[in-house]
Amino acid sequence: MFDGTHLPDLDPAERRARLRLARTPRIGPASFHEALSHFGSARAACVRLDAVPERRILQEEKALAGLGGRFLVLGDAAYPAALAALPDAPPVLSAVGDTGLLGRPMLAVVGAREASLAGRRFAAELSTQLGAAGFVVVSGLARGIDTAAHEAALATGTVAVLAGGIDQVYPLQNAGLHDMIAKRGLLLCESPLGTPPIARAFPRRNRIVSGLSAGVVVIEAAARSGSLITAQRAAEQGREVFVVPGSPMDPRYGGSNDLIREGAILTRDINDIISVFGRPQCRPQAPEKQAEIPHDSATERVLGALGTVPTAVDELVRRCQVSAATVAEVLLALELEGRLERHRGNRVSLM
Amino acid sequence: MFDGTHLPDLDPAERRARLRLARTPRIGPASFHEALSHFGSARAACVRLDAVPERRILQEEKALAGLGGRFLVLGDAAYPAALAALPDAPPVLSAVGDTGLLGRPMLAVVGAREASLAGRRFAAELSTQLGAAGFVVVSGLARGIDTAAHEAALATGTVAVLAGGIDQVYPLQNAGLHDMIAKRGLLLCESPLGTPPIARAFPRRNRIVSGLSAGVVVIEAAARSGSLITAQRAAEQGREVFVVPGSPMDPRYGGSNDLIREGAILTRDINDIISVFGRPQCRPQAPEKQAEIPHDSATERVLGALGTVPTAVDELVRRCQVSAATVAEVLLALELEGRLERHRGNRVSLM
Repeated sequence: MFDGTHLPDLDPAERRARLRLARTPRIGPASFHEALSHFGSARAACVRLDAVPERRILQEEKALAGLGGRFLVLGDAAYPAALAALPDAPPVLSAVGDTGLLGRPMLAVVGAREASLAGRRFAAELSTQLGAAGFVVVSGLARGIDTAAHEAALATGTVAVLAGGIDQVYPLQNAGLHDMIAKRGLLLCESPLGTPPIARAFPRRNRIVSGLSAGVVVIEAAARSGSLITAQRAAEQGREVFVVPGSPMDPRYGGSNDLIREGAILTRDINDIISVFGRPQCRPQAPEKQAEIPHDSATERVLGALGTVPTAVDELVRRCQVSAATVAEVLLALELEGRLERHRGNRVSLM
Repeated sequence: MFDGTHLPDLDPAERRARLRLARTPRIGPASFHEALSHFGSARAACVRLDAVPERRILQEEKALAGLGGRFLVLGDAAYPAALAALPDAPPVLSAVGDTGLLGRPMLAVVGAREASLAGRRFAAELSTQLGAAGFVVVSGLARGIDTAAHEAALATGTVAVLAGGIDQVYPLQNAGLHDMIAKRGLLLCESPLGTPPIARAFPRRNRIVSGLSAGVVVIEAAARSGSLITAQRAAEQGREVFVVPGSPMDPRYGGSNDLIREGAILTRDINDIISVFGRPQCRPQAPEKQAEIPHDSATERVLGALGTVPTAVDELVRRCQVSAATVAEVLLALELEGRLERHRGNRVSLM
């Protein structure tokens, strides 16, 4: 899977036709593949179906170029090979950033938005190690585990797959991270520019996260959670599913433990992943110093980092990348609202 | 395994010879079985080997009867069938209590001495449910998980297997529980009366815990822990091994997660056990009101119930079966020593 065998470059007219077909309303990936197979080519399909005109494609392509991006059309040499092999491969991806990452071995790290600080720390440590071992870390730019994974892998290579258009920043608190991944990693999405990230786009996004990757690491998936569904789809795609276990008394691990019962690989640390894939041959770039993330909302960050397990205030400052004074202010406000508990050793937790 | 097929009762002379052979110094279970197979019978073996005289057996039998106990000799109808099938079956067991429990389906519940309160609560809840489902709960009377399992199953049926002689109370803090199990459950051991519980007796004891049982449930086994070894031996005996998972960040689950990786059954609740064995046909006795445990050392009990996760003082009082005033006194002393942390909601934890 790592030495992607690329198709020869597409004929330019067929490439434009694929873009037109893919952007035609009500033609999803399934209809696209069906049309291609039925008519023999997108060019033939565009003649028979009421495909959008070419100028619409040129408009979007120009706007995308304005953001420093470009299309990856199914059949392009740069289109990721593992994804191309799926029966529901996205006909077109929009890409902003370093598409060279797509030629390297990729692993997805996904999990709960409402993750514990311990879970996010695990995600960060594992992603740093995966990066150092030569893997590109793929995730969905959501709060919680996704954010921890992207941040930790920014220096070595990370791909964020968005549910909306590539210009749609979601969640807003990750605006800084979105921007940094565009500059130093790679943003990918299936939706056209300007498409808001509506609810039903997330499962479609998740199939791309796992489809790009040789395996998916799941950290803190509750029963009936999105991460659980992602993992089940990943298994259907033939991807390895690695799951970090937790106590049956902690509902954050309900789905995780179910997955291990269903045959996913119980994962204690990076060695459980290396023992399946080995260490990739290609070396990552040397890690650079991580840039400061702009402060969107200090309260949101601090709240996001707090859990019911006591956490050192120093650790909060470090994790939230917000000044110690701001953290102290936020904690005081939470305490006055009766939401914060203080513990010895300058530690705090949510009530 | 549940409908134990018993051998016909032993010939009285052969039975006495087996007791003499088993009590002969330097004849362990392996030598016993070898002698039996080589000489054809214990009677023949006693003639050729320098077996202890019969009066030594009569002395021990009389002393055991004084404690309300009796011998179960390999070959006796009352000797547990599952244990008899092992190649290293104990030649003789000493039994005090209700040997009728040995005819019912048994499951072992084992784990860390230094268990968390959450782990002990899990052990207690599971053992209560296993008892209600018709299983006898077998364990080793150690601190932590073993104690929680025995206490919870006292009303429905529990078997404690001791490492030393049946008159040896170990650990001392479980003197009350030892006594209650003698009266309402069953104490078993392989060692002669008066044998202290030396270190190398514990692995031998553990093979009996698992050997009696259809399966072993492991709760909080650290890497290289005794519970881990018990589970591995149980698997070698052909017993089902059920393991409760935990976070890889918690060293109390290092061995547990390793066991699941090696093929043990990830266990979330009693349903994961029932789905293997079903619910036994024979019904347990109706649960009786649990007697008060005598107070050995209130401090030890309170310490044993405390962990780094905040616990309600009310819960401590309930768990420790010590008066609220005594618990308050112990907590104050711990606080003055700087070992206790207090939290909102009348909760406390160790520093």
